Amino acid sequence: MRYHKIPDETIRRLPVYLRGLLTLAEQGKDNISSKNLAELLGVNASQIRKDFSYFGELGTRGVGYRICKLTKHIKKVLRLDAVHKTALVGVGNLGSAVLAYPGFGTYGFDIAAAFDNDTSKIGKKVGNVTVEDITKLSRLKQKGIELAIVAVPRDAAQQIADKLVRAGIKGILNFSPCYLIVPRKVKVIRIDIGVDLARLPYYMPAG
Amino acid sequence: MRYHKIPDETIRRLPVYLRGLLTLAEQGKDNISSKNLAELLGVNASQIRKDFSYFGELGTRGVGYRICKLTKHIKKVLRLDAVHKTALVGVGNLGSAVLAYPGFGTYGFDIAAAFDNDTSKIGKKVGNVTVEDITKLSRLKQKGIELAIVAVPRDAAQQIADKLVRAGIKGILNFSPCYLIVPRKVKVIRIDIGVDLARLPYYMPAG
Repeated sequence: MRYHKIPDETIRRLPVYLRGLLTLAEQGKDNISSKNLAELLGVNASQIRKDFSYFGELGTRGVGYRICKLTKHIKKVLRLDAVHKTALVGVGNLGSAVLAYPGFGTYGFDIAAAFDNDTSKIGKKVGNVTVEDITKLSRLKQKGIELAIVAVPRDAAQQIADKLVRAGIKGILNFSPCYLIVPRKVKVIRIDIGVDLARLPYYMPAG
Repeated sequence: MRYHKIPDETIRRLPVYLRGLLTLAEQGKDNISSKNLAELLGVNASQIRKDFSYFGELGTRGVGYRICKLTKHIKKVLRLDAVHKTALVGVGNLGSAVLAYPGFGTYGFDIAAAFDNDTSKIGKKVGNVTVEDITKLSRLKQKGIELAIVAVPRDAAQQIADKLVRAGIKGILNFSPCYLIVPRKVKVIRIDIGVDLARLPYYMPAG
């Protein structure tokens, strides 16, 4: 199921809202107003209302949004209501940090395989998986893995992306500092801490 | 100098455009149309034109934008035209990966100090800095450091944030999976790979 009329910018914000809602649910809250959700997340309340309006009427005047209902709805829109098996490629410092990230399960991601080309790492258990030889990437299809996290050096990233595409991967989270060229049907999301850091000085008081 | 009328969402996209422009400059390009820039970045061309329109007339019909001029302008708006001394707190797997990130210099960031509470790390040289004892955080002000990257475990993050605020830090890039409570004058940007990963399934072809 896909909601084709939702703008990309709204899709980008939905996981942020979802994270806030999950935190509130953990705290035992049942309802939240767009104003209070906006304050928690440091975003704009009217933006939240506009984004949620794509799903029809989810809130009640004076009561706000029901956290449980809204969480379920956002998960369905984002297709996070099923488990997504994910492969990690590159088990260096960054890859190891990724494996230690506690939030994957929350969003329905299961790191089901890890790969590296370093023989000293292959065969070692990290988290719940055993590091496999990078030459075994083609097995991803058999394992039902459609998502991959790429945390390899820049020079190796495109070659790895090509192999992942051949192995049937449909989505890549790219940590390598480069643009990956992939067929249109494969979605790449790039994580670049420089780009996030670059927003900070704008908001800092001059002095 | 601040451009107060630029929306947050535009500010969020400017570093992405900047990264694209820097890549094109590296390739020896002088001009770029919004259409070609949009293709490179996987974003919407009309969005780019709208975002750039906040700066007045920067493009020429039929020629496009002058890459050098536009780069300089975006850097000025984002206040990246000066060097920003930055501290890293937490030199574990993630912190080490951050230190190895090659893109900081590009955006004018200089990792000028690193801190940890692990005695086996204190005194060791990582990148261009020597890891200092976390109890020395208060020295940041003397060193002219106003930005910090927090890469400590979740349980320690708020306590570190409090210390950074007392040490005069004005901006925090938070990698710890939690919300940080800071005074309004301090800007926090949170990096959460779960939130980025959570967008991928939406774009994957059903099957």
